[in-house]
Amino acid sequence: MRIDIITIFPGMFASLQESIIRRAVEAGHVQIEITDLRAYANNKHRSVDDYPYGGGPGMVMQPEPFFLAVEHLQKQDERQGPVILLTPGGETFTQKKARELASRERITLLCGHYEGIDERVRETLVDEEISLGDFVLTGGEIPAMAITDAVVRLLPGVLPEESVTDESFTDGLLEYPQYTRPAEFRGLKVPEVLLSGNHEKIRLWRRQQSLLRTLACRPDLLAQARLSPEEKRMLDKMSTGNDEGS
Amino acid sequence: MRIDIITIFPGMFASLQESIIRRAVEAGHVQIEITDLRAYANNKHRSVDDYPYGGGPGMVMQPEPFFLAVEHLQKQDERQGPVILLTPGGETFTQKKARELASRERITLLCGHYEGIDERVRETLVDEEISLGDFVLTGGEIPAMAITDAVVRLLPGVLPEESVTDESFTDGLLEYPQYTRPAEFRGLKVPEVLLSGNHEKIRLWRRQQSLLRTLACRPDLLAQARLSPEEKRMLDKMSTGNDEGS
Repeated sequence: MRIDIITIFPGMFASLQESIIRRAVEAGHVQIEITDLRAYANNKHRSVDDYPYGGGPGMVMQPEPFFLAVEHLQKQDERQGPVILLTPGGETFTQKKARELASRERITLLCGHYEGIDERVRETLVDEEISLGDFVLTGGEIPAMAITDAVVRLLPGVLPEESVTDESFTDGLLEYPQYTRPAEFRGLKVPEVLLSGNHEKIRLWRRQQSLLRTLACRPDLLAQARLSPEEKRMLDKMSTGNDEGS
Repeated sequence: MRIDIITIFPGMFASLQESIIRRAVEAGHVQIEITDLRAYANNKHRSVDDYPYGGGPGMVMQPEPFFLAVEHLQKQDERQGPVILLTPGGETFTQKKARELASRERITLLCGHYEGIDERVRETLVDEEISLGDFVLTGGEIPAMAITDAVVRLLPGVLPEESVTDESFTDGLLEYPQYTRPAEFRGLKVPEVLLSGNHEKIRLWRRQQSLLRTLACRPDLLAQARLSPEEKRMLDKMSTGNDEGS
């Protein structure tokens, strides 16, 4: 897979040089190309914004540099895929969207700045618009990192398979509590069941804790979770206050 | 305001050295301190994770380094504020939350890694848990950047005041389309009204476009938007298909 990121702040993407993403690049699972939008400016000051027509605060990013950059990158590499604008008005990013993008052979991410980006980019160059959530950031760079991170970790071979399947949102529930050494820290003890060596008991306890946590923190997720009959019984008991889990 | 970020990947935060955040730091509006969690490891390999009790994939981050790091930073600077864990099970981050955090004198962000973090950190050290959205990332670093960015831009003096008030989500609507030079690009023209110089017409057109876009892309936002009687009339006309706006 190839991920292109077009930005006026290429230096921000040093964050992708660490950890799992760097290893994925080195192992050839993904090619990540950061393109400086200013290289496509049509003036010697490399300026890519100008005042908004109709007045108002801030500057607006001009259309031409985005068009030229996308066209140039497309000529470099024929792989096809959606051109995505990161913008607060876009579709909210979810794990489902991450899986969909991970199945493409290429994605191109355009980092807008929220004073605005010329509407003609949205209307003509862009295939999709994605928002990270209902909050305002200074630009699309951090959302582009988040999408890159969420997508790359799903690519085959990047993570051990059991890490991808046994995690938050994959089955629609939050994760169970995790504990590691020491068994007692400042008087705080690891639950007995985890030290018992009884795998079936541990499995049941973890599943129950996942259900409890989801019920307490994100009950909205339960409506869409894939639950076994056993889990539905656990959940009914918890919901009626007959709580075995804590 | 002071923002502490505790992480095993301090190098990722180079992204905060750019743009508006850097200027906010240089102007003294905010102090951002990145702390390497490994400095608080209790072994010469600087390892901060270990196998999960009860088995299962991945490693779990140990409690002690987080406790020691938070306690040490608290001694360095007496300012008080919530210790926040970035985790998929947390409260979903919103602009309202960003405003709330921007009013604190300090926040401390703990970057977990999603194989898991010892539950005793969550139970005892952490005041709040925040999630960026319903997707899985390799760690809490990108969410910590997003929260830092969203909060810092709201601090007094960081942005011109009109940029903060005239934007997405502040009044509950998506932004109107923006255009800048050239007036015609590859046959695509800027709407006449924006070239008219008639400020009242421009204001009305923009408000109508905001309503239209919100209705088309994020109708869920309309229920909570603050609308004038004039806007409610516009919206009624659009919703009944009697659309004046496009």
